[in-house]
Amino acid sequence: MTAPIPANEAVTDWLDAIRWDSAGLVPAIAQDAQTGRVLMVAWMNRDSLAETAATGRAVYWSRSRSKLWRKGEESGHVQEVREIRLDCDGDVVLLAVDQVGEIACHTGRQSCFFNRLEKGRWVAVDPVLKDPELIYR
Amino acid sequence: MTAPIPANEAVTDWLDAIRWDSAGLVPAIAQDAQTGRVLMVAWMNRDSLAETAATGRAVYWSRSRSKLWRKGEESGHVQEVREIRLDCDGDVVLLAVDQVGEIACHTGRQSCFFNRLEKGRWVAVDPVLKDPELIYR
Repeated sequence: MTAPIPANEAVTDWLDAIRWDSAGLVPAIAQDAQTGRVLMVAWMNRDSLAETAATGRAVYWSRSRSKLWRKGEESGHVQEVREIRLDCDGDVVLLAVDQVGEIACHTGRQSCFFNRLEKGRWVAVDPVLKDPELIYR
Repeated sequence: MTAPIPANEAVTDWLDAIRWDSAGLVPAIAQDAQTGRVLMVAWMNRDSLAETAATGRAVYWSRSRSKLWRKGEESGHVQEVREIRLDCDGDVVLLAVDQVGEIACHTGRQSCFFNRLEKGRWVAVDPVLKDPELIYR
């Protein structure tokens, strides 16, 4: 006879499949669900990923502030999560999101990846869509 | 009078803009230049990124083997790099690539992100395009 499985075990099983790093974190890529544009990369701990899956809104772990970072809590630029994927070795998470406000970056740009390498220099090639001072006030 | 800049300094300046981690590495995302599909995430050190930029082929740093990993050196599935981007805080690189053979993952799938979260379980939702035993022989 096997021991009964607690009701909540199946719910969190999938979190154990992730290869959390020594700090208990995993990098998460947010990709625009419609356009495929890579918007940003941030970190998640177990709680942030569990809350992301439960609520359908992206929640990260802020390493600088050592607290949960509910994306958009200050800016209003929340990310509605359409899909959550995990890579083959279980150490990177990929989110397909609808980016509210079309701005993911704290600089007021659509994507954090606005620097392009051109002839040995990084060039900021994407426009600032909204002044950050108007976003965070 | 300012000192003359050595001819090779401008060429590697851009590498200094990157916030390498304590192990001298940075994560690099490879994204299909045509479809926008996120194919894989691997690590780069300074030498691998310099070679990637110089040759136009993706070169990573294998943490398990502690050596440069010229993507496709065994499988033939090289990545032709169309664009190199850096994020706002300089600690993640994004490559737009043409994936030769349409297979980036060692499991024989197009992308390493083939596990999708469905009702509390990871489900491998993408097909194996080629038997790995036929890729690595």
